[in-house]
Amino acid sequence: MATRKNIFIYPYIYLSFLVCSLICACAQTNPLPSWNETAAKKSIIAFVEKVTKEGSPDFVPIERRIATFDNDGTLWVEQPMYVQLAFILDRVRELAPKHPDWKTTQPFKGVLEGDMKAVAATGEKGLMQLMAATHSGMTPEQFQKIVADWLATARHSKFKRPYNECIYQPMVELLSYLRANGFKTYIVSGGGVEFMRPWTEKAYGIPPEQVVGSSIKTKFEMLDGKAVLMRLPEINFIDDKEGKPVGINQFIGRRPIAAFGNSDGDQQMLEWTAAGDGPHLMLLVHHTDADREYAYDRQSSFGKLDKALDEANTNGWIVVDMKSDWNRIFTFDK
Amino acid sequence: MATRKNIFIYPYIYLSFLVCSLICACAQTNPLPSWNETAAKKSIIAFVEKVTKEGSPDFVPIERRIATFDNDGTLWVEQPMYVQLAFILDRVRELAPKHPDWKTTQPFKGVLEGDMKAVAATGEKGLMQLMAATHSGMTPEQFQKIVADWLATARHSKFKRPYNECIYQPMVELLSYLRANGFKTYIVSGGGVEFMRPWTEKAYGIPPEQVVGSSIKTKFEMLDGKAVLMRLPEINFIDDKEGKPVGINQFIGRRPIAAFGNSDGDQQMLEWTAAGDGPHLMLLVHHTDADREYAYDRQSSFGKLDKALDEANTNGWIVVDMKSDWNRIFTFDK
Repeated sequence: MATRKNIFIYPYIYLSFLVCSLICACAQTNPLPSWNETAAKKSIIAFVEKVTKEGSPDFVPIERRIATFDNDGTLWVEQPMYVQLAFILDRVRELAPKHPDWKTTQPFKGVLEGDMKAVAATGEKGLMQLMAATHSGMTPEQFQKIVADWLATARHSKFKRPYNECIYQPMVELLSYLRANGFKTYIVSGGGVEFMRPWTEKAYGIPPEQVVGSSIKTKFEMLDGKAVLMRLPEINFIDDKEGKPVGINQFIGRRPIAAFGNSDGDQQMLEWTAAGDGPHLMLLVHHTDADREYAYDRQSSFGKLDKALDEANTNGWIVVDMKSDWNRIFTFDK
Repeated sequence: MATRKNIFIYPYIYLSFLVCSLICACAQTNPLPSWNETAAKKSIIAFVEKVTKEGSPDFVPIERRIATFDNDGTLWVEQPMYVQLAFILDRVRELAPKHPDWKTTQPFKGVLEGDMKAVAATGEKGLMQLMAATHSGMTPEQFQKIVADWLATARHSKFKRPYNECIYQPMVELLSYLRANGFKTYIVSGGGVEFMRPWTEKAYGIPPEQVVGSSIKTKFEMLDGKAVLMRLPEINFIDDKEGKPVGINQFIGRRPIAAFGNSDGDQQMLEWTAAGDGPHLMLLVHHTDADREYAYDRQSSFGKLDKALDEANTNGWIVVDMKSDWNRIFTFDK
């Protein structure tokens, strides 16, 4: 009889354990261990708790829990230059043997000689030439492979790590915490959408279809009897500044209730989020830690944070002070 | 002792029942009851079974199970005219009192007098004027409300039902069946994305962020101190023909493994799907039932099916014969 009873009890205990584990996973005691116990963390948790509390006036149905994250400087490092720019420079060097004329033609000459002043002097036209030479003339699948191969070997100059490991652990925890509370997390970045999609799922748990970014045009064509898309040397969409709310509306079709950025390029995304009905959260990451990462804001060429910082201070948006709010910066920091 | 045993047994039985229900829900005996037992249905089920069978050479990981559906003529009725065109005509009539000049200016005059020949004579320029007058000059939220209000009162001329009830029950079942098997289902339509998003979740279980469509440009601006997007009288993207694979790549970033359409506007989407690695399924709905719905193909002004039908026959794509393959057409049919 005792044996028969055990047959019934054990599966029940096991299932109870499973159910408890599920409940505990949702109500974990410290979902943001890399965040110090400061106002920033407390504000985030208070926001998530109020929008997920059924019956509360601030409750937000799960399908409206949209959170958008800038990428450069918000989720991964953007100094000493945008990672995509490092990719462009490396690609020009790699492709140079096939283009002997680049030795004498700007902006390629400047890249090959390491003369960034000469490159900068070619302005927007020069940048478009570099983009065209490195980002077009192949299918999206071919481009994804080029990006993945580059990431496998390229290293960040300061941290000596692959770029896709130079991601901020506190933000990775924040993404997980939001998803565990029913949020759908999106990247909304000025960077190229097809430059990000090959690696964001592994790095952040964000699948390709939840990445919004800048893009070049593509063209459908038949190549050797097979349907392909071909990447063209022409800008399609710039997902920066005013482009961010435009891109969110176009791709997601819902206004976020939480938006995360770090520069003036994110200002309009945060403004549009702030203007929505119901509760909303706006957060800027302020790079204040020259030792563990970088310290920059109003004067920076990459990730300039000036007007958005003033607006954050005026309107009470959360401003994360990396130095004091984060006890760990990178995922590879132990 | 008997009582104590029962305490343990009952929850276990209850939980076992729950687990069985879940398993049964996935392996239900007839997931497509509105489909007759013909080759079309058998091909769909064989495809889904092979791509979801772990260990099989045709197994497709869940994140790659992307299915894209055209809307007009594939999920809902597109005769006697595209629903969005009916919306435009109704809106012109409703807005006319505020625009006395429309009485004497084409294409508005033609709309107000029911002279569709005069409207058609204004060509693409006229259509753009109608689009601009009815689709721009408001925020996306305001436009969504206009669409929702219109759908609440407008009725289909033949079926006397709201347009968002004139949806094909076999396709609604197919969407559910695919989702139950781990597919992510998307609409990829030539129709306006913001014309569809207000109602697709309720009709098809497809949320706004999984609707890809044609769009007009929007502009970020501050209105009375609040951040808004304003809809502009300018085309942004035409999600038809070659535009469909382009749109899928841009919005979803993955090639579908199953694509569903009904007209030449879907041909390139199906071709691009067919050219992907691994197993894939292409299906065209052929409107062959003049009694229960409509019969049209090569000569139709709306949803013309000509080249794509030839290609389907040549390449063995599934062609659904509505008359013989579907035992029920609309969700409201009993």
